[in-house]
Amino acid sequence: MIESAASAELAALRAQIDDVDGRLVDLLAERFACTAQVGRLKAQHGLAAVDPARERAQAARIDALARAAGVDQELAARLFRLILEKVVQDHRALRAELGAQ
Amino acid sequence: MIESAASAELAALRAQIDDVDGRLVDLLAERFACTAQVGRLKAQHGLAAVDPARERAQAARIDALARAAGVDQELAARLFRLILEKVVQDHRALRAELGAQ
Repeated sequence: MIESAASAELAALRAQIDDVDGRLVDLLAERFACTAQVGRLKAQHGLAAVDPARERAQAARIDALARAAGVDQELAARLFRLILEKVVQDHRALRAELGAQ
Repeated sequence: MIESAASAELAALRAQIDDVDGRLVDLLAERFACTAQVGRLKAQHGLAAVDPARERAQAARIDALARAAGVDQELAARLFRLILEKVVQDHRALRAELGAQ
């Protein structure tokens, strides 16, 4: 059985982790609000949903930020890859929707 | 060619996205600092690296937070699954390291 001081420390750390998770989800919402606006702009102006130069620059930036912050760079790259895939999927859906109007 | 007002709007949105990404990486660093402390506690007290009840509670909480914030719930689940996998991997490595001392 874990003693009570350690148990209290574990509970405090978990509360802090839950707080961070709430802020992570809020930031994701903020990010998708921005990318929805980007998607509308791109659809209105006939720009491609994918911009390889921008994506390369973002990947390099995430890698540098992760290294500087001491976050595992491979994990950071995988997380951002998932986020960017969803953004491109949303942009394509938006373009199809606007194109159908 | 995209006109200059739209181009400026796109640049402003991308700057905001880059800012959000910086804050996301900082939060990941904060989260892994917490989970490293959890890992040390668990290793010191012989607790399992994986706590299925805690993981289920976290997954349910992330799902509720994502729904409330309007973030795609499947994406949120995938992102947090990757983060939690890394945490468990780190906890196992830490336990092996402490066990070898």
